[in-house]
Parts: sequence; C-alpha cells; structure tokens
Amino acid sequence: GPCRGGMGCGPARYLVFFQYFGTRYSGVMETKSDQALIGVQNYLEKAAEKLGASVPVRFHISSRTDSGVHALCNSAHLDIQRAPGKPHFTGQQLTHSLNCHLRPEPISILSAHRVASTFHARLQALSRTYIYRLLVGCAHPSQVPVFERDLCWAPAGGPLNIPAMQEAAQFLLGTHNFSTFRSLSNEKPLRSPVRTIFQVEIQPSPGFLSHHYEHRGLEFWEVKFRGKSFLYRQVRRMVGALVAVGQGKLAPHHIKELLEIKDALAFPPNTMAPPSGLFLKSVEY
Amino acid sequence: GPCRGGMGCGPARYLVFFQYFGTRYSGVMETKSDQALIGVQNYLEKAAEKLGASVPVRFHISSRTDSGVHALCNSAHLDIQRAPGKPHFTGQQLTHSLNCHLRPEPISILSAHRVASTFHARLQALSRTYIYRLLVGCAHPSQVPVFERDLCWAPAGGPLNIPAMQEAAQFLLGTHNFSTFRSLSNEKPLRSPVRTIFQVEIQPSPGFLSHHYEHRGLEFWEVKFRGKSFLYRQVRRMVGALVAVGQGKLAPHHIKELLEIKDALAFPPNTMAPPSGLFLKSVEY
Repeated sequence: GPCRGGMGCGPARYLVFFQYFGTRYSGVMETKSDQALIGVQNYLEKAAEKLGASVPVRFHISSRTDSGVHALCNSAHLDIQRAPGKPHFTGQQLTHSLNCHLRPEPISILSAHRVASTFHARLQALSRTYIYRLLVGCAHPSQVPVFERDLCWAPAGGPLNIPAMQEAAQFLLGTHNFSTFRSLSNEKPLRSPVRTIFQVEIQPSPGFLSHHYEHRGLEFWEVKFRGKSFLYRQVRRMVGALVAVGQGKLAPHHIKELLEIKDALAFPPNTMAPPSGLFLKSVEY
Repeated sequence: GPCRGGMGCGPARYLVFFQYFGTRYSGVMETKSDQALIGVQNYLEKAAEKLGASVPVRFHISSRTDSGVHALCNSAHLDIQRAPGKPHFTGQQLTHSLNCHLRPEPISILSAHRVASTFHARLQALSRTYIYRLLVGCAHPSQVPVFERDLCWAPAGGPLNIPAMQEAAQFLLGTHNFSTFRSLSNEKPLRSPVRTIFQVEIQPSPGFLSHHYEHRGLEFWEVKFRGKSFLYRQVRRMVGALVAVGQGKLAPHHIKELLEIKDALAFPPNTMAPPSGLFLKSVEY
C-alpha cells in the first residue's frame, strides 16, 4: 500500500462544532436534494466534497433539529481519508476550508478537533442544552422587531405569569416517562419515552439591541433545558405547555398530570411552541 | 364640496416611526423600481397604495440611510386624503394596515401619530442618534456568528485599543467643519460641512445571544453618535477613523488633525467602516 513517510494512511476522525440559522433549512438532517428546503447536513457534505478526500465524507450529526430550529452549537463526527502521501488536516485547516465552501449559507463551522477513530458524536454526548426564546408584550405578531423575526416566539394574549411557569417547570425536572410530551412520528421506531432533565430555568434575556428600545415594553425570556437527550419535539411541547400555564390556560399542577397520563394524544391541541424560538445551545461531552 | 357630518375633508398628516433590516435595500430613499435593489421608501409607498386613499401617498423621510444600513427607528411624515365621508385613520389603524401590506418585507411601522399639517419630519427633527456595532476577536470573517451576519463589522487585525478610541472620539464632540469626514457625492448640491455632535460614546454591548458563547472570546462594542444631522457617510468615516486609532494605524491626535485639514481627499484610503454595522437608533423631536 501507499502508506509511507510518517503520513497516517487511514482516515482521520474529527469532531466538529457548527452553528446555523435554521429558517432556511428542512432541519439539520440530510434530505433528498430535490426538495424545496434541504437539510443543513446536505450543505455540510457538499462543502466537504470540495476537500478532495478519496472517500465521500459523511457527517454523523449528534443532535437532530427540526425545520426552523436554530443551533448556536450542534456537533458531528466525520472521517476524512486523504489521497496517499497527503497529511491529515489540522482542526484549524478543516474549519477554515469548510467555512470557505459553506459561504454564503448561514451555516458556520465553529471548531474541529481530531478524535479517536472510535469516537461517536451522538452516542458519546453527555447532554444537550436547548434554549427557547419568548417575546412578551406584543399585541400582534407585526410588533416583533424585524431583527428578531424567526428568532423568537411572541405568544398572543398579553403578559405571561412567569412565577407560575417557573413553578410548573419544576415538575419536568428529573427522570420521567415523557410520552405526553413527545410528538408521534412514523419515521423512527419508537424508542423508550423515559428521559432525564438535569436543569430547567426561566430567565429574562436580552433581545437583539433591545437596550435601545426599552420604552416599547417588550420583554425577552429564555427557557433553558439541559438533558441527556430529548424525544421528538419534546422541548417545543414542554415550552408550549409552560406558556399555557403562563397564560392561565393550565395550572402548574396540570404539568404533573400531563406527565402522569403518558399519552401523546392527551397533550392540549395547538399548544406546541413554534420552531422559530428554539435554539440548540450546546452539546456537552 | 363633500365635506359634511364632522368628517375632516382635508388630508390628515401623520408622523410615523418605522424600522428595517437594511441589507436587502438600496437605502431608505425611493429609487426607480427597475433596479435590482430598491429603497425602503418604495415598499412603504407600495403598502400605502393599498390604503385606498384618494391621492397617492408620499413618505417624506426624515433621515437618509445608505444601502445595507439598518434602522431601529427612522421617521417620516405623510398625508392621507381619504374618500369623502370616510373618517381619518387613527394612528393605530394606520400602523396596523401598513404593517399588513408590508409583509413579508423586514420593514415594520412602529407607531403613527396625527400631527399638524405644517409638521415636517426632516426639518423639525432636533437630533439623530446612530449606533455602530463592532465585533472584536474574530481572526477571520467566517468567525462572525451566523446570527450577526450583516449586523456588525469585525475589523481584521486583532484587538482594538478601546481607551485610545475613546480619547480620539472626544475630538469629534462639538461643532466642527467635518469636510474630511464627508464622502463626496455628486447627487446633492454641497451643503455646509459644519455639523454639531452632542454625544459620542464607546461602550461594550451584548451580541445576539452572546451570553451563551462567552468562551469564544468575541466582544461586541457600540459606538454611539448623537447630533443634529450628519453629512453623507460621516458616521461611517468617523467610525472607520476611530477603528484605525484602535488598531494603532492612527494616533488619537490624528483625528483632530484630520478635522483641521478640512479636505475629504485627506481621509485615509480604505478606512471607511462598512454599512453592515450601522443602525439609525432614533430621531428625536
């Protein structure tokens, strides 16, 4: 074989962290490329094609996100097999090259790290942290600042009772059967509905340049969830239910009852939060 | 004439405040609509056409902004002559209708106020406040977070000496001949180059969700200018010169010398700040 001169001849595995503005994509996962919206993974792999690797590069994404959902930081692993005699990319070279080829898409590689060939981005993640941005104080969707469009949810119907939401959120902490908070999907075999949430927080958050328009009475809040992993649409359903509590449509103890029912069909209709406010903040290893 | 029943029969004048994401427009002012990028004013007047007024509605914009420049809040006055017998719009009705017709453009009416028929949005403005957003800590433009693209400037070349910039900014305060800081334009007759700056401030600023990625070493700064009015591209030239001070290419006292030269051609080449970081924050009456 052509392995010589101290050059590694097997593929090199990398862990990459990347971010994206999700509005333009069908989600993070690859889709058939003949669709109107395609996946972030399609763009990542198209950029990787231009690295000139000997074998097509596949991204193994750690954390699925839906159409319209954003990532401050998602992660994936990938293997790169270069032509014989060519040295492996450094993390910095790989970051820079992929970013050049990703332009002008709003997808960006944050960093790339050489890892062992046994490393698996999805299976080895210890936890995922999501934040959901709520905008309070809009009487109508047209009052969402133009700089915040597609980046938050402004639920209709006046102020939110934040202390009630905070009380309700405590019921979600810990290990539970989250069947009521999972959307049914026929794309995937049903996995266990038991999940563990390590952290839930509801805190005020700055909006984009909102210190310049405080007088408009708009308030941003962030709901943060950290857990090992989440079920399909679990975060958006949990946020939607908490907002229903904030609006007085549900009482805090109803969250506990919804958990105990363990039935996706018992989830109150039209209560799921839209994708625009959801951000995958980080994947922890 | 058809003036009866307590209905005002003359036109009603309104002062409107509006915001826009400037990247998609040729600037705020109206342009011929056959160009690739057209002006924010074109969209405002197209939305106003759908109000069914008897006379075409013209927006008299208070503050010009260039292509790529944003507004948290700009202002304009306009007259609306309704059909005989129809009552004047309230400010709220006008805001709501225009916003419906502006969708999906990233332009939004913030409020509308009935004013005297002698009111003039440009001539009666007491001052304008601009902010310019700088991103420090990017080794390469691809390190600008995807959520901040087109919304800041990340000058190349390492950290900025902020105290030196703050020292230099003090020379711009007060009344000066700003000829060196004006871009030449053959579109307008030359007006007096004397302008008064009431306030200059350079302060740290939050980035969009940047509290979630503090470890990346990115820092946002805002340069704020308040003045009665500004010359063509004056703010971008002042910011560019201050950044050159921050990079050590100019000393703070060079700002004073540039002012004293009173010659647009003496401005250091390739120093003007790009439009992406500039926001008209407010117009004061």
